[in-house]
Amino acid sequence: MRRPRPRPSLGILGGMGPSATADFYRRFVERTPAGSDQAHLPVVMWADTAVPDRTEALLGQGPSPLPALVEGARWLQRAGVSCIAVPCNTAHAYVEQLSKATGTEVLDMIGAALEAAARRTPGLERVGVLATRGTRLTGLYERAGVRLGLDVVQVTDGVQERYVDAAIRAVKGGADPAAPERWIATAAESLKEQGAQAAIAACTEIPLISGAAARVLPLVDSTDALAEAAVARLWQPAQVVRARGRRG
Amino acid sequence: MRRPRPRPSLGILGGMGPSATADFYRRFVERTPAGSDQAHLPVVMWADTAVPDRTEALLGQGPSPLPALVEGARWLQRAGVSCIAVPCNTAHAYVEQLSKATGTEVLDMIGAALEAAARRTPGLERVGVLATRGTRLTGLYERAGVRLGLDVVQVTDGVQERYVDAAIRAVKGGADPAAPERWIATAAESLKEQGAQAAIAACTEIPLISGAAARVLPLVDSTDALAEAAVARLWQPAQVVRARGRRG
Repeated sequence: MRRPRPRPSLGILGGMGPSATADFYRRFVERTPAGSDQAHLPVVMWADTAVPDRTEALLGQGPSPLPALVEGARWLQRAGVSCIAVPCNTAHAYVEQLSKATGTEVLDMIGAALEAAARRTPGLERVGVLATRGTRLTGLYERAGVRLGLDVVQVTDGVQERYVDAAIRAVKGGADPAAPERWIATAAESLKEQGAQAAIAACTEIPLISGAAARVLPLVDSTDALAEAAVARLWQPAQVVRARGRRG
Repeated sequence: MRRPRPRPSLGILGGMGPSATADFYRRFVERTPAGSDQAHLPVVMWADTAVPDRTEALLGQGPSPLPALVEGARWLQRAGVSCIAVPCNTAHAYVEQLSKATGTEVLDMIGAALEAAARRTPGLERVGVLATRGTRLTGLYERAGVRLGLDVVQVTDGVQERYVDAAIRAVKGGADPAAPERWIATAAESLKEQGAQAAIAACTEIPLISGAAARVLPLVDSTDALAEAAVARLWQPAQVVRARGRRG
């Protein structure tokens, strides 16, 4: 079914949402230190936009996205990928199950984002997270923070609903980015008031509207952190990024 | 092997080069009039960066990219895509053979770019083309121009080598874009002197460095024209974009 692949290749399990997937793929290409087309890393992508909404599933308001994620991961496996990147923070609630069900290495976007924040802000102790309600609910960032010795803070329920949820919804709906960008900056202000020294744009839609927030606090883009981790994993095979599934 | 797809889906046969593929995917998503993740069109992508250089093959200086293209197209077919977009102008020299070998509908980037130029410049008679040496050699744009009643002009050999080839090579190599952008503007000036009323950025690397050229002549981005054609083909199934392979 396939010829042997001489080089490591990346599988992208995307479409959650498609703009964020396109942003991730661009960053992965930009971060790859290749000098010609042929030197770049092969990529295959499955962007099934019909994957059920992750936050709705986590809130018990909709079907699980897991079957669609497993189908996509199996298809990427058959294409011979070395590992899979899932450029959606909320979908990471399912990554451990996905990795176990398929035996595939899935890169850990949550750990990559927190590690990038620690590297970029020396002495970092408290980091704020701008995420979907689904990601907040799962405690993914809090648990990874414990492992890395970081105190993770979230916005209040009011700020979440009024500014963060509204901004993510607006980006996914293709709205004008001016208002969502202000809302995300307001949410970053509230994290700063709670003592956060840095923040993570922990939903792949947020980096698309985080220009103003980055002037409030040092802001790590989770999409870019995942791209960096993917290049590190594949460009230098000796450098092993631990897969979430293997850790869990 | 796969569940039935309720909606049309796009296959992207990419990696030629990867930056251009990322640019195409982003434009496809942006041009899709969807109001939520789930309303977007499913996409699968095969970006095998090891596809042999298209221009070298056409100049008789390297192996044919056709076997690698056929392998990718077969893999996309197995994923159940409705049609395939190949965001590389030079690769269109092989699209007719690719379509015949696999029985897959492949969207026609060359026709889409010329049609977009004719729509955007009323009364267009002469259109200039900024392309690789490979695309120039095949006469792809000239033949499509005859069909559409457009006179297609190319830059001189000297301008091709000194400005266009050098700029494409610099983008593929990840160089600073300032100098390549000036070179492409110089090439656009030379097309204007030859009577071109508009120009086509007919290599998918050129739109990444065409800001200055677009101030010289109305410039159609072939990547964007292909994205527009793909959305038209898939978002409104009644609107049939003729596949190059079917025409050929």
